[in-house]
Amino acid sequence: MQAAEQARDIATILQGEGERAALQRLVRLQPFDRAEVLARLEPAERLRLVRAMPTPLAAETLEYLEPELQYRILDHLDEPLAAALLQAMSSDTVVDLLLALHPLQAARLKAWLPPAYRERIDTLMTFPEDTAGSLATIEYIAAREGWTVQQALDHVRKVGHDAEVVSYVYVVDARGRLVRVASLRELILADPRAPLADVGRADVIAVRATAAREEAARLLTRYDFVALPVVDDQNRLLGIITVDDIIDVIHREATEDIQRLGGSVPLAESYFKTPVPVLFRKRVGWLLTLFVAGAYTSTVLRHFEDLLSRVVGLTFFIPLLIGTGGNTGSQTVSTLVRALAVGEVAFRDLGRVLAREVATGALLGAAMAVAAYIRALTLGVGPQLGPVVAVTALFIVVWASMVAAILPLLLHRLRVDPAVVSGPFISTLVDGTGLFLYFTVARVMLHLP
Amino acid sequence: MQAAEQARDIATILQGEGERAALQRLVRLQPFDRAEVLARLEPAERLRLVRAMPTPLAAETLEYLEPELQYRILDHLDEPLAAALLQAMSSDTVVDLLLALHPLQAARLKAWLPPAYRERIDTLMTFPEDTAGSLATIEYIAAREGWTVQQALDHVRKVGHDAEVVSYVYVVDARGRLVRVASLRELILADPRAPLADVGRADVIAVRATAAREEAARLLTRYDFVALPVVDDQNRLLGIITVDDIIDVIHREATEDIQRLGGSVPLAESYFKTPVPVLFRKRVGWLLTLFVAGAYTSTVLRHFEDLLSRVVGLTFFIPLLIGTGGNTGSQTVSTLVRALAVGEVAFRDLGRVLAREVATGALLGAAMAVAAYIRALTLGVGPQLGPVVAVTALFIVVWASMVAAILPLLLHRLRVDPAVVSGPFISTLVDGTGLFLYFTVARVMLHLP
Repeated sequence: MQAAEQARDIATILQGEGERAALQRLVRLQPFDRAEVLARLEPAERLRLVRAMPTPLAAETLEYLEPELQYRILDHLDEPLAAALLQAMSSDTVVDLLLALHPLQAARLKAWLPPAYRERIDTLMTFPEDTAGSLATIEYIAAREGWTVQQALDHVRKVGHDAEVVSYVYVVDARGRLVRVASLRELILADPRAPLADVGRADVIAVRATAAREEAARLLTRYDFVALPVVDDQNRLLGIITVDDIIDVIHREATEDIQRLGGSVPLAESYFKTPVPVLFRKRVGWLLTLFVAGAYTSTVLRHFEDLLSRVVGLTFFIPLLIGTGGNTGSQTVSTLVRALAVGEVAFRDLGRVLAREVATGALLGAAMAVAAYIRALTLGVGPQLGPVVAVTALFIVVWASMVAAILPLLLHRLRVDPAVVSGPFISTLVDGTGLFLYFTVARVMLHLP
Repeated sequence: MQAAEQARDIATILQGEGERAALQRLVRLQPFDRAEVLARLEPAERLRLVRAMPTPLAAETLEYLEPELQYRILDHLDEPLAAALLQAMSSDTVVDLLLALHPLQAARLKAWLPPAYRERIDTLMTFPEDTAGSLATIEYIAAREGWTVQQALDHVRKVGHDAEVVSYVYVVDARGRLVRVASLRELILADPRAPLADVGRADVIAVRATAAREEAARLLTRYDFVALPVVDDQNRLLGIITVDDIIDVIHREATEDIQRLGGSVPLAESYFKTPVPVLFRKRVGWLLTLFVAGAYTSTVLRHFEDLLSRVVGLTFFIPLLIGTGGNTGSQTVSTLVRALAVGEVAFRDLGRVLAREVATGALLGAAMAVAAYIRALTLGVGPQLGPVVAVTALFIVVWASMVAAILPLLLHRLRVDPAVVSGPFISTLVDGTGLFLYFTVARVMLHLP
């Protein structure tokens, strides 16, 4: 059933039979779906249901709502209930909520949290949005060096209700440094009397809180964990990043690369949340840059004005030839930018990449030369233009392949995101140089001055 | 330390001190890193180490190698060891290995597996590569309806060694139908004497084996699970998909979308594994299609031949104006194709999307009109061309925004992957229509026939 229908049904039950009946229906849904229903209800209905829900269930549901809606709900509840809900929510959600609010509103919510919790939240809030630290949650299970397996399992039973992921137990020393990790599976399968030091592994894969969030995604993708510990410079455990947050990062990174490849600065928000003036600002910079870079096409054309007025037919093939060059470049660039992003290709592969792209370009160029020759014939512009257009097509395609092979690798080497070499960028580069190629070929083949 | 250095070190230890010492070093690495080292060793060294490893460790390591290398190792081991290794590997890896081999080789390996296991593997092998079923592994933990929590936990202790993910226990009825799911956390926190029917939830989110793998990714992303059950048409449990495989799917889908948006058919393999003739084949189709679609630019130019020979200056701005149109279209298309892929936008939003893109296009068009006017002035082509070029820039940008807003949504509605509306595709569409706009504006504003 769709969320909209669910919401209508539940609103009807709420009006007819009251909270208990509506809740019975709501409880059966997954947290994500429950949140979708809540978001669609009237504010008063929403508050009635949240008040009637058991706190853990309400907290779990609230986590899937947008920060504004979370705040609107918390703001309208009695303080004790709101405080209990906030404390029951996972800390990474609380951090996101606090960062999204006005400082005064955030301060009011923070006052509801116990001092120790507030302190740890404050630490997490210092990490910028694109770092691993910003994704961390403090709801992990830590055990102390020197415990037995049984002690660790008892601890899991005690604190496991609050933990976001109980797949791993992180062992820390007296100074809070991460020294060991054991999976819950290993703990359950181990002898309960064994020392914790005999279970799991000592060289823990962890990510620094200040590392880029992509680094966390790379580690988790590589090692197939469901959570990754986050440490500070002294290897002290600050929190964990759960795999669901990493999945969101992977989606977001792909979105950003696609938007960059399309020739736009990535949007910070989802499409409909981005107002038109912001869409304009994200796009106009590159559009103007490309316009200025492309302006020399006019210079090239002007330079060959004489040739163009002698052989007017040459003009007819300008968009087709430079378009083909741009298309070839776009194909190569998008493939290589992605290969760089997932680590399949690096700068040291430049020679191999160039050889492959030039070979592919030569094959494609030959095919396009035939197509261009046929087009010249069918347009009926006289027999001498066909060979000129065909040879130019071959040259332009090979040239575009070369430029598109070298540039992304070079930028990656210079630590510039290669996704800025968008399709539009390559097309623009190839436009002017392609025209120069075209008219030079024409001059030589038509024996013109 | 890099894998190459690790491999050199371990080879040295192997030659100097023997397998035991080398193994002590190797065991400390994560499975992924261990596999990287193995892949870099000489075949004879590799086999010595695999023979010396405990079977579960060797199996876990082999899972991270490519199918060809897996086969080369298994093929050189004594049959009992090879058979034990194959059985200890996770079933989704075994399926991928068997599908990658020559049928005769695959049959030889399959003969090593117990009949019951072979049967289940055969079922999984029937699902095509792009389905959820192809990602499933049979190493899950199933419990029977009617058990107590204690019985379920005892079962986990007994079979947990072989399971790939022990985060969930799936409850099936006498006919193998999936009726309930409980997380290991819920089991550990529950009263051991409680019936299993009281723990976890009855409405299980599962994916059909025949569903697209993107559907599995969507469900797992939405509900934040670490594993997703896979069922047949009768809701019988066939296997589970683990979150690490879903992460690979998300990466692969993003790669495909990026390659499509660049105007190429997606590559089936990674970049360097794709031979040049395949790169050529994946690209030439779209390149020729775009060439044919773009061929009408020549017709348009020919149609306006008279105008062009009267006002030669018009030619100078052709690449710049149609390039700007293509760039605008590419920005819009990439943003919208991604928004469609992640479900932020759907066909029913067409009106809103169009309004937003036309508004953004009008702002961008105004900016580009100013830029175009300045360019006309600096090129010194006479005062009458500036206004023509400026007005055309405005029109072309708005027009490109409209086309790029409508097409992806329309294709998504028609169940064609909107990523085929690549940047090159939009550029090509806008090229010809943009020229028509340009010359029409010129005729009207210059009062020419």
